[in-house]
Amino acid sequence: MYTAPVDDYRFLYSRAFGLDLIARSTDGALNAEDATDIVQHAGDFAASVLAPLSRIGDTEGARLVDGTVQLPDGYAEAYREMVEGGWISAEAPASAGGDGLPDAVRAALGEIWNSANAAFALSWLLTQGQIHALDAKASDAIRETYLTKLVSGEWTGTMNLTEPEAGTDLGAIRTMATPQPDGSWSLKGDKIFITWGDHEVAENIVHLVLARTPDAPEGARGLSLFVVPKYLVNADGTLGTRNGVSTVSLEHKLGIHASPTAVLNYDGAVGYLVGDLHGGLAGMFVMMNSARVGMGFQATGISERAYQGALQYATQRLQGPVIGRDGGAPISEHPDVRRLLLSMRSDIYAMRALGVYTADLFDRAAEDGTGELAEFFVPILKGWATEDALIVTSDGIQVHGGMGFIEETGAAQHYRDARIMPIYEGTTAIQSNDLVGRKVIRNQGATAEALFVAMGETVTALSAFDHPVATRLADRLTRAIDSARRATAALVGFAASPRDAYAVSVPYLMLLGTLSGGWMHALAAIAVLDDGKTTSERLTIADFYGSHHLPRVHALAETVAAGEVA
Amino acid sequence: MYTAPVDDYRFLYSRAFGLDLIARSTDGALNAEDATDIVQHAGDFAASVLAPLSRIGDTEGARLVDGTVQLPDGYAEAYREMVEGGWISAEAPASAGGDGLPDAVRAALGEIWNSANAAFALSWLLTQGQIHALDAKASDAIRETYLTKLVSGEWTGTMNLTEPEAGTDLGAIRTMATPQPDGSWSLKGDKIFITWGDHEVAENIVHLVLARTPDAPEGARGLSLFVVPKYLVNADGTLGTRNGVSTVSLEHKLGIHASPTAVLNYDGAVGYLVGDLHGGLAGMFVMMNSARVGMGFQATGISERAYQGALQYATQRLQGPVIGRDGGAPISEHPDVRRLLLSMRSDIYAMRALGVYTADLFDRAAEDGTGELAEFFVPILKGWATEDALIVTSDGIQVHGGMGFIEETGAAQHYRDARIMPIYEGTTAIQSNDLVGRKVIRNQGATAEALFVAMGETVTALSAFDHPVATRLADRLTRAIDSARRATAALVGFAASPRDAYAVSVPYLMLLGTLSGGWMHALAAIAVLDDGKTTSERLTIADFYGSHHLPRVHALAETVAAGEVA
Repeated sequence: MYTAPVDDYRFLYSRAFGLDLIARSTDGALNAEDATDIVQHAGDFAASVLAPLSRIGDTEGARLVDGTVQLPDGYAEAYREMVEGGWISAEAPASAGGDGLPDAVRAALGEIWNSANAAFALSWLLTQGQIHALDAKASDAIRETYLTKLVSGEWTGTMNLTEPEAGTDLGAIRTMATPQPDGSWSLKGDKIFITWGDHEVAENIVHLVLARTPDAPEGARGLSLFVVPKYLVNADGTLGTRNGVSTVSLEHKLGIHASPTAVLNYDGAVGYLVGDLHGGLAGMFVMMNSARVGMGFQATGISERAYQGALQYATQRLQGPVIGRDGGAPISEHPDVRRLLLSMRSDIYAMRALGVYTADLFDRAAEDGTGELAEFFVPILKGWATEDALIVTSDGIQVHGGMGFIEETGAAQHYRDARIMPIYEGTTAIQSNDLVGRKVIRNQGATAEALFVAMGETVTALSAFDHPVATRLADRLTRAIDSARRATAALVGFAASPRDAYAVSVPYLMLLGTLSGGWMHALAAIAVLDDGKTTSERLTIADFYGSHHLPRVHALAETVAAGEVA
Repeated sequence: MYTAPVDDYRFLYSRAFGLDLIARSTDGALNAEDATDIVQHAGDFAASVLAPLSRIGDTEGARLVDGTVQLPDGYAEAYREMVEGGWISAEAPASAGGDGLPDAVRAALGEIWNSANAAFALSWLLTQGQIHALDAKASDAIRETYLTKLVSGEWTGTMNLTEPEAGTDLGAIRTMATPQPDGSWSLKGDKIFITWGDHEVAENIVHLVLARTPDAPEGARGLSLFVVPKYLVNADGTLGTRNGVSTVSLEHKLGIHASPTAVLNYDGAVGYLVGDLHGGLAGMFVMMNSARVGMGFQATGISERAYQGALQYATQRLQGPVIGRDGGAPISEHPDVRRLLLSMRSDIYAMRALGVYTADLFDRAAEDGTGELAEFFVPILKGWATEDALIVTSDGIQVHGGMGFIEETGAAQHYRDARIMPIYEGTTAIQSNDLVGRKVIRNQGATAEALFVAMGETVTALSAFDHPVATRLADRLTRAIDSARRATAALVGFAASPRDAYAVSVPYLMLLGTLSGGWMHALAAIAVLDDGKTTSERLTIADFYGSHHLPRVHALAETVAAGEVA
């Protein structure tokens, strides 16, 4: 049973930040209530069509049978319903022929698809990433042949970076693309960990492949980007023969079993250059940014599903006398089960709110110049939310007690599914290096300081309310911002000793994520108190976040200041 | 590949605490070098016989086939080798006919068996618990018939508490034992989550069952303890017919697949009372204490195995230029991979040292009166080490990057296996309630304060060394002890508002565990510096623990002081 968190999105769209969705929407007419309606519809669709397939996807998984990838019954039909419901094109930008929903609304959809069925949602998540890359870089011919089919959802897209000897280090990529007389390229090499790399759910698959060309410079600067379809496309747009890319095997993974993770062999596969020769990395980063923000939504989604399962169990399971109360009660009333549930709920709200906030920064970037801050939040959202999702899904098991360890309960699946998130689309270390190197040290902490100033203004606004939650949270945030400033100064001071900076870059990322979560709760508390309410679940989770999550900022600041332990 | 951490145990036995193993040993002759030799032998045996069976145990698991529990090939033979090698009786107390190895040595064995094969090791871990319970409570007849067979390892033991409607709340147990004319009892009821509840590895299984008797008081005070063999035992000691206990099913679990977790149905099963009528809980707690300390060793063991796998991968995998160094190198040289490895290693040392320290307190309890402190550490060791093991095994996956998510790599198994530890033998909440209710609030923090005084003396000794690691760690420990004192005072202040205390009891437990780990590193640093060494891996991990783990104490103290969030 899954129910989309529509109330939270209504609150985020209408109250929490003063979002101006109308100004962001393609037709200039989408207001908060319209956006909430879309969330409601997506939630209903996800609950009825996608969520019921999650467990069978986990138990049966994707299988390679006689060279063909098979998914459990229902997946192909559900994908078709996604397409026919217009959900794929809804998220694609208007410039690419999609509906161009604001990113702030896509944040909700991203969460919902991943709550319902994270392994399945990866198929269109990577399609969306490729749509962004092709929209930014591809020629008209490629747009016409491939982009339109990706936007309609008829075909799906993949992202081919990793090779056996080139994971985090893309410069080591060896797949070779050789120019052909007809202007196409011939690709040869092996790619691994290709998410939804092969399947029969859509009629064609478009691989976006990072490869080296003859005489290209060494390292990452010598890489170019190619579109390589599974089936070649005839001049009239119909599908031709199989291209020279074959599926060697599927990985046997800890989680997301229904997502076929393929080893692909390219052997004379026909490809088409996207963007500039040797400009592959830039094109891939467009896709990467979209996918990384999407990981923040996935982290929220898997966490939310784990929370709903735990909450449902805890409110139905009766056991034992409750400390400090008369008589028996559901275990959700036991102090430590309540602690676990509040910890999950308050952290998930923080992720969700930061996801919408970051998405809105991207929506506004073109006109308001919020792009720098948006880019700043990408590694934070991806790194922090996916790391915290491990704790949330672990807490989800703990709420169930012994039942949580039994696979049939379902809590364990979320724990297993979540574990890939801090790894793919760039490990947490990669996110933190991006944050620390490119976004903090390079401008001597200027963006971070601008953020702390904005947070300080929120604290001032919060302090104006005569309410104990406001008082406590304002005090805790003030101290947390101080700690964050000290940590930032320490990091900037490590500019000349980069090992010190990179040895504590993950703790610094976690610090900023945790602090930003507290900021999101402060904004929520202000909105609630502004409405004249003095009790609200939103105030409770804000208070809880302040006393259980926010204090970690101080511990992390001490760790950051220490630099590398020699 | 597994290698027992013999050097750490040599250090712990000979240098870290000034342990007097000779005084504790049964024959008064076991010195530190003898103890280390035993560890070395156990390590060799575990590496060659038990460790190779771990992965097949995970992939094939225990299966119920036509009413019989089957384990993969090799398990029965390996168990026989355990017995023939004398490893089961080595750990049993001399009073029960075992070798009576000191608990400080059993700590090492417990870790090693669990590193090699955690699912398998549970079989004799629970046997050892039952041995302790029967040694303390059973009649001569039961000792002669059952205890001797358990001590020799010919039979294994189980612990039957949980029922479908009675998990954490033992007072809800409904299994009924009815007295029979011959002095035996007839048991009827259902027990779930029975670890190694059925198997063919040993020729008989002795169930220790908590059950209610007719006209017994309601709740936990009405429970009695019974020995119920799988096969009835004839007067001459030979095995008779199957008793009335049958295996309904085995659980399909997230991890420890080779450990058969059974649902048992008792239907007129013949049982024998152990100890006093209605004194079941006291008897069970003897077993429970042993099992809980054993969980600390299991947490260390699974963590160590995850660490060895990660270290091996990271030192063999070459990738990318290393920040701040010239040229390529193994990924273990990358700052964040090094951070992960040091985090794992320093935390594992802390668990291992606290395990030996606690075990030695039990060894000394009879003569030195250290029993109170030993009991104080039981919930801390069980709760903190098992929770931290989740982080350590998660970090083990992260070190592997994408490969960590692939089951064949083996890292994922440790992550899955570890997840049960904070649940069974009493959840972390149960441990923390025991700690906070019985061991802190009841004596107004007196035991905790005595511990802080002892830690303060260590800080004074550490401060005497003119070495940057000593200076830093002494400063950090001083501040951490201050925070712990404030948290303890806050908890004691919650005596009249128990929900405040129990809403933050887990954070308080984690605080004391983290702080105790820092204390263990301080003792190690003193021993190293005392030997005149100025560089040592032990100093590096002590320094790392101080800057990455210990600062969490302050965050947790702030959480504890806040009490329940209303």
